[in-house]
Amino acid sequence: MFYGVDLTSRLMLGTAQYPSPAVLLEAIEASGAEIITVSLRREGAAGAAFRNILSESRCRLLPNTAGCHTTREAVTTARMAREVFGTSWIKLEVIGHADTLQPDPFALVEAARVLCAEGFEVFPYTTEDLIVGEKLLEAGCKVLMPWGAPIGSGQGLRNPEGLRTMRAHFTGIPLVVDAGIGAPSQAAQAMEMGLDAILLNTAVAKAVDPAAMARAFGRAIQAGREAFEAGLMPRRDMACASTPVFGLAELV
Amino acid sequence: MFYGVDLTSRLMLGTAQYPSPAVLLEAIEASGAEIITVSLRREGAAGAAFRNILSESRCRLLPNTAGCHTTREAVTTARMAREVFGTSWIKLEVIGHADTLQPDPFALVEAARVLCAEGFEVFPYTTEDLIVGEKLLEAGCKVLMPWGAPIGSGQGLRNPEGLRTMRAHFTGIPLVVDAGIGAPSQAAQAMEMGLDAILLNTAVAKAVDPAAMARAFGRAIQAGREAFEAGLMPRRDMACASTPVFGLAELV
Amino acid sequence: MFYGVDLTSRLMLGTAQYPSPAVLLEAIEASGAEIITVSLRREGAAGAAFRNILSESRCRLLPNTAGCHTTREAVTTARMAREVFGTSWIKLEVIGHADTLQPDPFALVEAARVLCAEGFEVFPYTTEDLIVGEKLLEAGCKVLMPWGAPIGSGQGLRNPEGLRTMRAHFTGIPLVVDAGIGAPSQAAQAMEMGLDAILLNTAVAKAVDPAAMARAFGRAIQAGREAFEAGLMPRRDMACASTPVFGLAELV
Amino acid sequence: MFYGVDLTSRLMLGTAQYPSPAVLLEAIEASGAEIITVSLRREGAAGAAFRNILSESRCRLLPNTAGCHTTREAVTTARMAREVFGTSWIKLEVIGHADTLQPDPFALVEAARVLCAEGFEVFPYTTEDLIVGEKLLEAGCKVLMPWGAPIGSGQGLRNPEGLRTMRAHFTGIPLVVDAGIGAPSQAAQAMEMGLDAILLNTAVAKAVDPAAMARAFGRAIQAGREAFEAGLMPRRDMACASTPVFGLAELV
Repeated sequence: MFYGVDLTSRLMLGTAQYPSPAVLLEAIEASGAEIITVSLRREGAAGAAFRNILSESRCRLLPNTAGCHTTREAVTTARMAREVFGTSWIKLEVIGHADTLQPDPFALVEAARVLCAEGFEVFPYTTEDLIVGEKLLEAGCKVLMPWGAPIGSGQGLRNPEGLRTMRAHFTGIPLVVDAGIGAPSQAAQAMEMGLDAILLNTAVAKAVDPAAMARAFGRAIQAGREAFEAGLMPRRDMACASTPVFGLAELV
Repeated sequence: MFYGVDLTSRLMLGTAQYPSPAVLLEAIEASGAEIITVSLRREGAAGAAFRNILSESRCRLLPNTAGCHTTREAVTTARMAREVFGTSWIKLEVIGHADTLQPDPFALVEAARVLCAEGFEVFPYTTEDLIVGEKLLEAGCKVLMPWGAPIGSGQGLRNPEGLRTMRAHFTGIPLVVDAGIGAPSQAAQAMEMGLDAILLNTAVAKAVDPAAMARAFGRAIQAGREAFEAGLMPRRDMACASTPVFGLAELV
Repeated sequence: MFYGVDLTSRLMLGTAQYPSPAVLLEAIEASGAEIITVSLRREGAAGAAFRNILSESRCRLLPNTAGCHTTREAVTTARMAREVFGTSWIKLEVIGHADTLQPDPFALVEAARVLCAEGFEVFPYTTEDLIVGEKLLEAGCKVLMPWGAPIGSGQGLRNPEGLRTMRAHFTGIPLVVDAGIGAPSQAAQAMEMGLDAILLNTAVAKAVDPAAMARAFGRAIQAGREAFEAGLMPRRDMACASTPVFGLAELV
Repeated sequence: MFYGVDLTSRLMLGTAQYPSPAVLLEAIEASGAEIITVSLRREGAAGAAFRNILSESRCRLLPNTAGCHTTREAVTTARMAREVFGTSWIKLEVIGHADTLQPDPFALVEAARVLCAEGFEVFPYTTEDLIVGEKLLEAGCKVLMPWGAPIGSGQGLRNPEGLRTMRAHFTGIPLVVDAGIGAPSQAAQAMEMGLDAILLNTAVAKAVDPAAMARAFGRAIQAGREAFEAGLMPRRDMACASTPVFGLAELV
C-alpha cells in the first residue's frame, strides 16, 4: 500500500506527548498500528533511550520533520533521520504558520522535490488543496497526507467536502488523514469516505486512558473501512418504514 | 443493563428487509448482537418458519409493535407478542406520522402506562423530548429509545444537542438510539456522547454486504463506548503542536 | 396572516432583558416589528409604567405566559393577560423543563384546548414535533411557534431537518420560529426554508448595541423571505463555471 | 476600503449567466452593488454592446481573468483588460482544476507578482490557505478573495473555521468571500464573522427572479455587517430564561 509495503492496520500512531514510555508502548500495542512516526528531536542519551523503546514496538518507523519551517530545515532533518533511523521513509512536515501548524505548500513541494530526487520515500503532510497534491505527486510522492484539521485541535474533518473531492480526484493514490482527528467516530467517517488511513497522535496521547483510546481508534478505523467496502446505504431525505407492514388488520 | 439483563454487546439488530434468512443470520452473527427485534406481522406458516430461524441466532428476542398507529393497536399487538414469543419485553412503537414514522408521544405514553401496568418491560421508541421521556419513566419504563433521525433515513444524529441534553438529564437510565443511523461513524458518535446502545435495521439490511456491515457496526459501537470510557480529548479552537519542538537549532 | 391580522414585518420582538426602557423602544423601532410580546409578570406600579412604555411603540401586543409550568398556571395567566392587555391573543408557553425551558407538550395541548374554547387566539410555543403540532391545530390554534433551540441559547436552528419536515407537513399554517435564534444569518436561514416569521428576544436584548442588532435582524428576515420568494439556486455537489469560457484561444 | 476606494455596499456582483442584459441591469440596481466584475471574453461587436450595457450601471468595473489556467494566460488577459476597460483593477483568477475551478496557488502567486509589479491593483481569487494569502500580500496584493466553496456550487461556507482563522490572521486586510455562496443567509454568516464583503454571481443570475434575489443578498449582507458591529450574543450550551420569572406566586 505505501511504497510497496503492505500493511494490515490503517492506523499510524505518533509518539509524542505520552505520559510515559510505558504508556506509549501500551498504546501502540493496543492500537494495532504497524507504523509509528518519530521525531528526530530527541537528542543525545535520551534520544537513544527513546529509540530503544520504540524498537520494542516492532513497528515500522516513519521519521518526521516536525517543527521544520523551511525547505532547508526539512531537508536537513530528513537526511539526518535517514541516517539515524536507517529508513528512506520520511513524513515531510514544513510548517507554514506557528498557530495553526498548517503546511507551507510552497516549501513543502520544494522539499518534496529535493527529497524524492535523493531517493526518499516521502509522506507529505499537506492540506486538502488538489493543486498542491498534484505538485507533490509530480515531485515524486506516492502518498498524500491531507490534514483533517489543525494539529492537536481535535476538530475532526473540518472540510469533508474538500476531502471527498480529493478522494474523487486522486484515485489510486493512498490518502492518509493526518492531524486534527479527536474522536474515533471522526476517524471512521474518514474511512467511510474511502480515505485510506489515519495518522493520530494527540487524541490518543492526551486521552485519560491512552491505551484504551488507542484500541478504540484501531477498532473504529477498521469499522469505517469495512463499512466503505460493505457499501453504505444511501441517505434519504424522508423516512421510510424499515419493517414492512402487513397482517395488521387481523390484530385489532 | 436492560431490565436486569446484563449484556456484552451494545448493538441491537432489527430483522426486517434482509435479502434472505441466511443473510440475516449471518448479519446477526457478525454483529455480535445479543438482542434482536422481531415483528409479529409475519403470520401463519411463514411466521413460524421465520421464528424458527431467529431461534437459531440464540439472541434474546425483543418483539416490536412496528406499524401500530394507535394505543389500542399497540397494546393488542404487545399482548399477542408476549404469547407468541414468550417474553414480557416489548419494543413499543406507536407511529404518529406515516411519512416520517415519528412516534406519537400521546399514544405512546398511554400505551406505555397500560403495558407497564400489565407487567410488560417496555422499550419505548420516542423522540429526544425530555418531557415525553419523563412521562415514559413515570409510566414505568426503565429504558428510553430516542430516535436519531426518521426510520430508514440514514441521516445519523439529526439533533445531537437534543440527545446530549437527554443524556445529561436522564442519568442512570439506559438510552438506546433507535432509528436513523446510516453509518458506523454515526453510531460511534452516539456512543462517544455516552448513549448506551444502538438499534439498527435498514443500514445493515440494505448494505451491499449486510454481514460485513453488521461487523463494522459492531466494531464501531464498541469503539465509541471504549472512547467514552477512555476520556476523549477536549476539542480546541486553535491548533497546538503535538510534537514539542526542541533541539532544532543544532540541525541547521 | 395571524388570526386575520395582516402584517408587513415578519419579526416579532420580546421585551425582556433590555438595559433600559429607552433602549427597548429604540430596538422595537429599529426592528420594524409590528408585534411585541409582553409578560404579565411585572406587577404593580412598575408594571403599569412598563405597559405605558410599550403603548408608545404602537405595536400590537402579544401577551405571553412565560414562566408557567402547568396548564392551570398558564390558563390563569392567559385570562389575566386578556383583562390587563385587552386582547384575546396569547403566546402560550408551558415550560416543561427548568434548564432547557422546553415546552411540556402534554400541558401545552391541554392549555391550548381550554384557551381556544374560551375564545383566545393562541400562539403556542412548541417543539418541532409533528404530532404535537397536529394536536395544537385540533385544539383550535391557527399558528404554531416551533423552537429553533432552547430559549436564550443562541444556537440557531438545532434541528433544521425537523423544521423543514414541519414546513412540508403544515402547508398553509403560519409557522413562527420562537427561541434559540442568536444571529441574523440564522433568522434568514429559517425564512429561506419557507418558515413565516421569527420571534426574538435575547439576541437583541443582549447585543452590545440592541437597536443596531434589531435593525440587522429586521433586514435579514426580510432578505430571507425575499430569497425564498425569488427562488434559491439548487445546491450542487461539484463546481461548475459561472463565467462561460470562450474567446480564450486568441489571447495567448 | 479597496485600494483607496471607499464604498458603501459590501456586495460585488458578477455579470455572467443572466437571462438577458435587462435582467442583469435590474439585478445590479436592486443589489446596491457598486462594483461589478466583468470578463474580457466577450469579443467583437457583442462585447462592445455588453460593455455599453455595463456602463449604464454606473458601477466601478472589476475585470476578471476567468477561465485562465496559467500565469501567462492570466497576465495577458489582465493587460488586455486594462486597455479595454481603462482600469488597473483586476480580479485575478488562475484556475487549477477544471471541475472544482479551484485556484492554482502557485500560478496565482506568480501572476500576482508580475501584475503588482506592473502597477495593477490585484484582487486575487484564492483558497482559505494562510500561507498562500501571505505570499499574495508579499506579492503586493492589498485584498484577498478567499472562496466560500467551489464556483457555482451554492454550498456556502464549506470551511468556516478556515475562514475564521483567516480573519484572525489577516487583521486589517480586506477579505472578500468569492465563490460558492448560494443563499443570503450564507452571505450574512460570512459578514457576521467579520469578513469584509461578498462577491456573487450564480446565486443571483440563476435565481428564478434575479433582481429580487439581488435585493435579498444586498439586504442580508448589510444585516450581517450590522450584526458584526452590534456585537452578537455568545452562544450558550444550555438554555436560560429570556423572561425573568417573578410574581408568579400571586397568579395561581
